[in-house]
Amino acid sequence: MTMIAPADAPPSVSDVEAAADRLAGVALETPLLESPLLNQRVGGRVLVKAECLQRTGSFKYRGASSKIRALGSDARAGGVVAYSSGNHAQGVALAARDAGCAALIVMPSDAPAIKAANTKAYGAEIRFYDRFAEDRQAIAEAEAAKRGAVLVPPYDDPLVIAGQGTVGLEIDRQLAALDAAPDQVLCCCGGGGLIAETSLALTARRPGLPIYACEPAGFDDTKRSLEAGVRRSVDPAARSICDALLSPTPGEITFAINRRTLAGGLSATDAEVRAAMRAAFETLKLVVEPGGAIALACLLSGRIEAADRTTVVVISGGNVDAALFADTLGDGAD
Amino acid sequence: MTMIAPADAPPSVSDVEAAADRLAGVALETPLLESPLLNQRVGGRVLVKAECLQRTGSFKYRGASSKIRALGSDARAGGVVAYSSGNHAQGVALAARDAGCAALIVMPSDAPAIKAANTKAYGAEIRFYDRFAEDRQAIAEAEAAKRGAVLVPPYDDPLVIAGQGTVGLEIDRQLAALDAAPDQVLCCCGGGGLIAETSLALTARRPGLPIYACEPAGFDDTKRSLEAGVRRSVDPAARSICDALLSPTPGEITFAINRRTLAGGLSATDAEVRAAMRAAFETLKLVVEPGGAIALACLLSGRIEAADRTTVVVISGGNVDAALFADTLGDGAD
Repeated sequence: MTMIAPADAPPSVSDVEAAADRLAGVALETPLLESPLLNQRVGGRVLVKAECLQRTGSFKYRGASSKIRALGSDARAGGVVAYSSGNHAQGVALAARDAGCAALIVMPSDAPAIKAANTKAYGAEIRFYDRFAEDRQAIAEAEAAKRGAVLVPPYDDPLVIAGQGTVGLEIDRQLAALDAAPDQVLCCCGGGGLIAETSLALTARRPGLPIYACEPAGFDDTKRSLEAGVRRSVDPAARSICDALLSPTPGEITFAINRRTLAGGLSATDAEVRAAMRAAFETLKLVVEPGGAIALACLLSGRIEAADRTTVVVISGGNVDAALFADTLGDGAD
Repeated sequence: MTMIAPADAPPSVSDVEAAADRLAGVALETPLLESPLLNQRVGGRVLVKAECLQRTGSFKYRGASSKIRALGSDARAGGVVAYSSGNHAQGVALAARDAGCAALIVMPSDAPAIKAANTKAYGAEIRFYDRFAEDRQAIAEAEAAKRGAVLVPPYDDPLVIAGQGTVGLEIDRQLAALDAAPDQVLCCCGGGGLIAETSLALTARRPGLPIYACEPAGFDDTKRSLEAGVRRSVDPAARSICDALLSPTPGEITFAINRRTLAGGLSATDAEVRAAMRAAFETLKLVVEPGGAIALACLLSGRIEAADRTTVVVISGGNVDAALFADTLGDGAD
């Protein structure tokens, strides 16, 4: 584990740049896509960062590879352990295999089938747990201690989130190549790792750019925390189809960054998320999972003014079961 | 219409390079994607050129823009006319709007609903015809003459196919950036425009690279023409779900190129195409239409040895109706 203390030395833009060096030739530079039909729907310009096209189908491969590749070969000899609902699981599994070390993933027994199957296919061992009765972090920490393995946390870790922030560096570079000046950025927010370092990198290069955390209705803990100035938790009874965004409280490290970099929070309902998944199918030709569609859902539901503006939307993942996806497409039928 | 005679002066690589200049900042450079899970299925390396992410959801926008932007403003003042089952229709419609001229599209009345709706959304006028009773080319030529408009043919036109060939230039550059040496390339083939100039560009830069035309079973006219050395037609009774690949005979200009550049032809059934669409959903997070999946279908059905090899697969389009896509995902249940 790194010794950087969260409150004293939060990861900086130079940490993100160092992560980008570790990820060069390892992670994909995902495209910044544009659809004339999507632009027409919104009445403005929409530029979509398609992280569903990343290796393992989500941005999580970046953070996992950033962490694992920063460890020396001695440190990773005992392998790595992670807990995750699915995307971090797959990211750690493949990042470990690509770096030549073993991985154990602690997964909820109700994780989407495709996420569990893929985690296994990337060569990881899986330990299932009951999401409502067991403490995944305690299980993972005990397994890590037993194996002499390194824990790769999903978001509250400087090396992990520095990797996620490479999304921000790429967006900045791709905007420059298009000669496009964004008015606002919408990005999903679960634990807040992706948006924390992405917003850090983007606001460093484009001061004053408004960046919004997008969360499922009922899981708007970051929005409420930003408003309160301190971390707030979700109602334990809350439910959402956005399985990737069910973290109950903003991360400690991530919130310390997000409260400085973000303009606010937005949220969308499950029905709006499903409509956004259909819109991505129709206009972008992308397979987007519910959590991955939350920022697009906030945009298309009019949570923020987008007419005559240029909006960057981050689509974070595409690991969705075929049955749910087919059912979602069916919503649009008369 | 250009005055270049097909047999005397087929379009060359420098024509493709000139088209790339016209398309700079107009068409997207689509990514060359890689999925570890897809690699595992094949036992080799698969690099996927994702043209379904192109503006209008297929490579056809390249050819249409190449043609329309090569016309002087006088030549396009009367607008353009095209006939198409759908992807060329959308490509011409948006390319015309982007270049500031009017477009009339002659479409079969049984074209997929999404393709007709999008063509209209891009601002084009549509004239429907009966695929089995009327001659689309005659209708289009009469309309063009009446309006003083320029006909933009779907493939048998040097300026159109020079635009499609920019896919080949990009693949070459992207392979170089990955430091990857391909063993073979699989590309869809309807009229043969995409594969003609793509293979011309790729074999010019990588002499001896084997490139295969991939066609729906029953529509393997290019495969049989390559074997016979002269153009062969399909059985008029043939049917396929690959609506983008139903042209009855290889193009005259395109076949003159393809007989020099291609290693042969492969084909796949509708069921294999649907399985490939599911594989693209699961591993690549791409929405692929039936015709767009034909090359992947040939690969995954074992029509060519791919183990321990690097295979480039071109995915040409993603304009598929939601109902068909949902139904196709359902094939994979149990």
